[in-house]
Amino acid sequence: MNNVKGLKIVTIGGGSSYTPELVEGFIKRYDELPVKELWLVDIEAGRKKLEIVGALARRMVRKAGVPMEIHLTFDRREALQDADFVTTQMRVGLLDARVKDERIPLQLGMIGQETNGAGGLFKGLRTIPVLLDIAKEIQELCPQAWLINFTNPAGMVTEALLRYSEHKKVIGVCNVPFNMHLSISKMLEVEMDRVRIDFAGLNHMVYGTHVFLDDQEVTDKVLDMLGNSEIQMTMKNIAPLPWNPRFLKSLGVVPCPYHRYYYKTKEVLEDELEAFKSGNTRAEIVKKLEEGLFELYKDENLDIKPPQLEQRGGAYYSDAACNVISSIYNDKKDIQVLNVQNKGSLVEIDYDSAVEVSCVVTKNGPVPLNMGKLPIQIQGLIQQIKSFERIGAEAAVTGSYDKALLALTINPLIPSDELAEMVLQKLLEAHKEYLPRFFQ
Amino acid sequence: MNNVKGLKIVTIGGGSSYTPELVEGFIKRYDELPVKELWLVDIEAGRKKLEIVGALARRMVRKAGVPMEIHLTFDRREALQDADFVTTQMRVGLLDARVKDERIPLQLGMIGQETNGAGGLFKGLRTIPVLLDIAKEIQELCPQAWLINFTNPAGMVTEALLRYSEHKKVIGVCNVPFNMHLSISKMLEVEMDRVRIDFAGLNHMVYGTHVFLDDQEVTDKVLDMLGNSEIQMTMKNIAPLPWNPRFLKSLGVVPCPYHRYYYKTKEVLEDELEAFKSGNTRAEIVKKLEEGLFELYKDENLDIKPPQLEQRGGAYYSDAACNVISSIYNDKKDIQVLNVQNKGSLVEIDYDSAVEVSCVVTKNGPVPLNMGKLPIQIQGLIQQIKSFERIGAEAAVTGSYDKALLALTINPLIPSDELAEMVLQKLLEAHKEYLPRFFQ
Amino acid sequence: MNNVKGLKIVTIGGGSSYTPELVEGFIKRYDELPVKELWLVDIEAGRKKLEIVGALARRMVRKAGVPMEIHLTFDRREALQDADFVTTQMRVGLLDARVKDERIPLQLGMIGQETNGAGGLFKGLRTIPVLLDIAKEIQELCPQAWLINFTNPAGMVTEALLRYSEHKKVIGVCNVPFNMHLSISKMLEVEMDRVRIDFAGLNHMVYGTHVFLDDQEVTDKVLDMLGNSEIQMTMKNIAPLPWNPRFLKSLGVVPCPYHRYYYKTKEVLEDELEAFKSGNTRAEIVKKLEEGLFELYKDENLDIKPPQLEQRGGAYYSDAACNVISSIYNDKKDIQVLNVQNKGSLVEIDYDSAVEVSCVVTKNGPVPLNMGKLPIQIQGLIQQIKSFERIGAEAAVTGSYDKALLALTINPLIPSDELAEMVLQKLLEAHKEYLPRFFQ
Amino acid sequence: MNNVKGLKIVTIGGGSSYTPELVEGFIKRYDELPVKELWLVDIEAGRKKLEIVGALARRMVRKAGVPMEIHLTFDRREALQDADFVTTQMRVGLLDARVKDERIPLQLGMIGQETNGAGGLFKGLRTIPVLLDIAKEIQELCPQAWLINFTNPAGMVTEALLRYSEHKKVIGVCNVPFNMHLSISKMLEVEMDRVRIDFAGLNHMVYGTHVFLDDQEVTDKVLDMLGNSEIQMTMKNIAPLPWNPRFLKSLGVVPCPYHRYYYKTKEVLEDELEAFKSGNTRAEIVKKLEEGLFELYKDENLDIKPPQLEQRGGAYYSDAACNVISSIYNDKKDIQVLNVQNKGSLVEIDYDSAVEVSCVVTKNGPVPLNMGKLPIQIQGLIQQIKSFERIGAEAAVTGSYDKALLALTINPLIPSDELAEMVLQKLLEAHKEYLPRFFQ
Repeated sequence: MNNVKGLKIVTIGGGSSYTPELVEGFIKRYDELPVKELWLVDIEAGRKKLEIVGALARRMVRKAGVPMEIHLTFDRREALQDADFVTTQMRVGLLDARVKDERIPLQLGMIGQETNGAGGLFKGLRTIPVLLDIAKEIQELCPQAWLINFTNPAGMVTEALLRYSEHKKVIGVCNVPFNMHLSISKMLEVEMDRVRIDFAGLNHMVYGTHVFLDDQEVTDKVLDMLGNSEIQMTMKNIAPLPWNPRFLKSLGVVPCPYHRYYYKTKEVLEDELEAFKSGNTRAEIVKKLEEGLFELYKDENLDIKPPQLEQRGGAYYSDAACNVISSIYNDKKDIQVLNVQNKGSLVEIDYDSAVEVSCVVTKNGPVPLNMGKLPIQIQGLIQQIKSFERIGAEAAVTGSYDKALLALTINPLIPSDELAEMVLQKLLEAHKEYLPRFFQ
Repeated sequence: MNNVKGLKIVTIGGGSSYTPELVEGFIKRYDELPVKELWLVDIEAGRKKLEIVGALARRMVRKAGVPMEIHLTFDRREALQDADFVTTQMRVGLLDARVKDERIPLQLGMIGQETNGAGGLFKGLRTIPVLLDIAKEIQELCPQAWLINFTNPAGMVTEALLRYSEHKKVIGVCNVPFNMHLSISKMLEVEMDRVRIDFAGLNHMVYGTHVFLDDQEVTDKVLDMLGNSEIQMTMKNIAPLPWNPRFLKSLGVVPCPYHRYYYKTKEVLEDELEAFKSGNTRAEIVKKLEEGLFELYKDENLDIKPPQLEQRGGAYYSDAACNVISSIYNDKKDIQVLNVQNKGSLVEIDYDSAVEVSCVVTKNGPVPLNMGKLPIQIQGLIQQIKSFERIGAEAAVTGSYDKALLALTINPLIPSDELAEMVLQKLLEAHKEYLPRFFQ
Repeated sequence: MNNVKGLKIVTIGGGSSYTPELVEGFIKRYDELPVKELWLVDIEAGRKKLEIVGALARRMVRKAGVPMEIHLTFDRREALQDADFVTTQMRVGLLDARVKDERIPLQLGMIGQETNGAGGLFKGLRTIPVLLDIAKEIQELCPQAWLINFTNPAGMVTEALLRYSEHKKVIGVCNVPFNMHLSISKMLEVEMDRVRIDFAGLNHMVYGTHVFLDDQEVTDKVLDMLGNSEIQMTMKNIAPLPWNPRFLKSLGVVPCPYHRYYYKTKEVLEDELEAFKSGNTRAEIVKKLEEGLFELYKDENLDIKPPQLEQRGGAYYSDAACNVISSIYNDKKDIQVLNVQNKGSLVEIDYDSAVEVSCVVTKNGPVPLNMGKLPIQIQGLIQQIKSFERIGAEAAVTGSYDKALLALTINPLIPSDELAEMVLQKLLEAHKEYLPRFFQ
Repeated sequence: MNNVKGLKIVTIGGGSSYTPELVEGFIKRYDELPVKELWLVDIEAGRKKLEIVGALARRMVRKAGVPMEIHLTFDRREALQDADFVTTQMRVGLLDARVKDERIPLQLGMIGQETNGAGGLFKGLRTIPVLLDIAKEIQELCPQAWLINFTNPAGMVTEALLRYSEHKKVIGVCNVPFNMHLSISKMLEVEMDRVRIDFAGLNHMVYGTHVFLDDQEVTDKVLDMLGNSEIQMTMKNIAPLPWNPRFLKSLGVVPCPYHRYYYKTKEVLEDELEAFKSGNTRAEIVKKLEEGLFELYKDENLDIKPPQLEQRGGAYYSDAACNVISSIYNDKKDIQVLNVQNKGSLVEIDYDSAVEVSCVVTKNGPVPLNMGKLPIQIQGLIQQIKSFERIGAEAAVTGSYDKALLALTINPLIPSDELAEMVLQKLLEAHKEYLPRFFQ
């Protein structure tokens, strides 16, 4: 860290509705993590939102009485100069693009979602080139800085950054593992710090492979509780469809909420088709929520993160980013679940690929823990999604129609090569302006 | 080989309609492979078929003028004594069981098939314990003998034998790679021996990863032809649904006909549901074909393999078995595509698992060739099916309801944990008498 | 932990001269690690030493004013009942055996040492069967207990325990990594906690693969300092022969003091041959030191660990054991360097083998960190020593003359198959009474 | 092959004393391998030898009555134009350099040899840049051609070509496996084709891991015979020092003659030091032999390969090259032991490294067979030599003093970092003119 000048953090996509959570995170941690400058960067098209969020951030900082400077800018290069950490939270094409990612596949009878299936691929295709540009600028302007990405699809994005960017100080964060840890602790009726979970897998495809309560493994007990009680570990943006209890037991590891897309494909699809018909896909709901949030943010009397933000679905997302930044800054050596280069942590997965695993976070960045061999029953699905992520990342970088078609056809949520091509053509057309590499 | 006594081959499931092809195979090769005794073994329930087939076999041998003795027996142990090779081709529960394997899943809206999905699992659950018993007897009565299995699902069966049998001289054979080699040669309009194909994958999940014509690689050309011509490489028991040409091109390797189940799931399912409604599932068609075949076989004037057998769908199956036997017997060191222990041939697949790859066949058995790293795009699906096969084999051996449920839920053809349990219960009930390990 | 009854620790080989350090370690940590009972166990032949050490331990505890009970016993089973942790520090055959381990190889012109080469093998052959017996009793009498071994050769012993014992809660500890960390910090003139080192390799064959000072990697700088200054990181029992500075630079990672046996074989051998001639091998020096120590220990006025113990060579050995016990007890999640099952931590080493790597120590035991690919230049030697350890462990378990000969011949410190057999025969004869498995 | 113009083979280092064997090889095989043009290429310094050998070659061809044209040239580029196969057999610095490779290490008390230890490294340092230049020209002038190298150290050279050359159609050949196959067959008193051996390892570090006689494994029997009889499988350039029989038995696999350098280091060194003193190192003997051979070759009446060539030590070397060329040309699919990219054939060795293993030779080149897991006892040494080869190749390519020092220090035949630097300096000085990359 450049301790002389003080800690400088840059948030790209600063006009996001999540920013107040991030600002709150830095305020809460000010004693251990004295952020001197927080630069919120956005694009011209997001000027209005950036100004609203920036003003709120300033009120929050003032109220908290911490000497943190809030800078707003549309000049990314200016912001990146000598930064210590860069966080990225963006939505290329804004929520309108997400609506298309969800509705177009559903229109063709497939799951429409922003990180899985056809929608997930397209979010990746739009986002990856932008993040590679950012990584390139970081390498030039602040090569010591860590890039902390929480833009979805975080798995495919981290894969792309690790493989195609020269800048390798890259970490993908997600709130799913934290939420699972929290839910399981609640279910066990104990404090979170008495529960330790080995997390292994990919982003939105992560499993709790071993759950420990104090010095005892309680994985089976947790699976029993998950299967048989009213408690259904889930998240705001995933329908709380109950797991089959015997399946959970036979699985032997704790699935994440997103696993419903793969183990309950039929039920999830039916649920989404309902939402599609009524105009209540998650994207459409979020769009309304966001409008409400920005109305709130405008209120000049508001000087804290409004509680309504938690309805938005990304609770703890920004917190995960603050946590990793603080642990690096303070050499905490605590265990966090992050998207990093595998390096043997999961022996069945390619050494160079991005995985989401428990890591020790040191001043030199995260070091993955050895998660050991994956149970046979989950190896296949993880590897299949990894194939999808790798081909998807390649499609994003090359702008290759064929690679995009390949990524779609091998995705388990897309039921045939013909439907893959249909959804590809429709989505390419719909997102044309955000996919310059495909339309050269 | 016990050359003194002469070569002894035992065919378990000798009453199969395929047996005439096998007999023809031995007759054709008599000069290089002088089979002295061919023992056709079956169970009492198959007495009538065994007698019909046995009589035909004797007429064929007499007509050919080769001194090969045909023995018929229901006493497996007697047959196995000092055998040199044992082939296994059986159908526990006969074709009626296959009808259930196909129709019950379809009734619930899932693909019903005898080696894939729920039907494939149940064929494995019925078959594996029987084959393990046979392997145990071989280990006792003729430990030098090779077990050549061509009972489906050959992948899961070979996996189970390699992992759970003490007798390790086990080879799984299938006609798919031969058929692909033949079709591609025809498409290229050249003799088969000018075409060499690297085959890599699993049974019914095998890819031609490189196709060579003389000293040139022609894989892309073959994919173009496959995608764009009328020629659609397929097999009798798989609907000839055309591939999407751009998908084929992007895949970069030649899929096998069975890959339609995974890359054209929707179209295959629709096609099967049609057949389901009209009572023309493949099992039902085969049942009729078989009845016709046995009528033909009864004809005392018939003394050759009748050409109608080729309609049956298993052409070259028995031929593949004869080939591998002859190559071992003669130390031919030719290349054949077989189901064997991986041992690093496919680096992404567990060392101990069964794979279907190009092998050199020596007097000491097949040695797999190194197929190198699989293309990313096919790694995931192969590994997923391997997970299914391993859990399925474990279910068969243990009789565990939970493992069976797990195998079904992780199978990509079964769309949810709830449907998995429904189809499991129905199939368990339907096949109760052939699943003693599940009903203790 | 059985918190109700209080923490019970068993130290096998309790009469060791190191025990006062262990007792001091528990006293120092009493606030965080309230040991209620410390059982010192030894064999009848060690009665006198146990009584001397036990009396000193009691005086130390009394002086410190902590309510820790010291139990002395020759009944191992009684001691193990319901233990929480078992530490093992033993010397089968006592120092006289070590004298033979060192002098017999030297007599034949080979390096004689207690953890490397022929001497190391024989220490393993004598020790491993005893430790396997202990592990078996632990599994029976206190299956929840962790076995913390610091008996040399710790690498081969941990390998044997992980492979051949049913009890798998086994950790090997060594003071080498701590000493390296300490020396490097001193050399850099900073506090230890500002230095973080990735440790990777095997016991007495561990490398510092990356050295970080705060957020900067300083490995090259450390190698420069090590090569060019007067400072020569070493240990009491290894001659401080200077490294060739250019070699160190080209190696690119920090070797441990024991690496001199392999990278400076000639110089070490010459040095040892000098000592051999003058009767001053390390074993002979230690024998005198130990006699002196026990004279000191007898002093009824002594109630602290005497400073002379540090001359003994094992400084921080017992401390390492206390550290790991405390971290497990307190779920500290700190990083320690331990001998554990590899599980992918070193990708070039067998998944199941023992390795010495940086681990996070949780209440559920140590979890290895991913150390990533080893530099090419150190892969070979590590793997060669691992081959030696595995064959050595197999020899110890089976009592096979041939396996022992094989272990010796493949060891890089033994210059031929003929010399291997000569030293084998002499050492077998010399240690006959402690090698029952070889003389059945 | 460019069948229209006829088969064109280029032999670089055509003035070698081995060339008559190569010519004989092509003559013998003319019916199956109709070589139209054989181009013998050498450098100006070798003009005299090239002319002598070339004239003999022409006499041999005339005598045999085959229409093979012999072309002599010093213009490598002219020769390479449209070649089908290029063989390389060269000695940069001629035999005088080999004398230095052998005598300089011995002068410092270390084994001096042309493919192992310090001498082997220096042969690699001189040779690799030249071969990389040749490979570059092949890629430009005849990219379809296979480069068949039998220049030593063939392991390090193949490693360097596979890693650093763009032209990847590279095969390293060696006569060791053939000689082992021949010796073992003689020992068993059977024809070679009844014996099949799995070969696995590296060049001059290859093991027969399984020996089969007909359908039975006879490895143990062969080891017994090797250890206990007068027969000692060896080669002209390696002293026939007998193996310790119990060591052989415990090793469990058949070592190659060169393994004496590693398992009998002391005895080999003593033997070499004798030769050093008397001026009879192998290089000096070969020098005399070569002079004699060239005298013979000059004889205008000589029109066959003279039997004295077999004394030279490289018997079957050129034959091995002819064999692989013929098998590729004829798509023979026979099994040969070749140096190729590993690709998983040896699971413990890096996927991309050169290994020496049994391969099937097709028209598309060699495909390695899966040799399965190596026995533990040989894993370490193989990996250590692989480390040496990889660092050595890197030193050759970069001209790095430090990498060369590193390669030497990690080599098991070099007993310390200080001696490594001494021998490095002396050999660098001695070979200065052939090491331009080290003296820029």
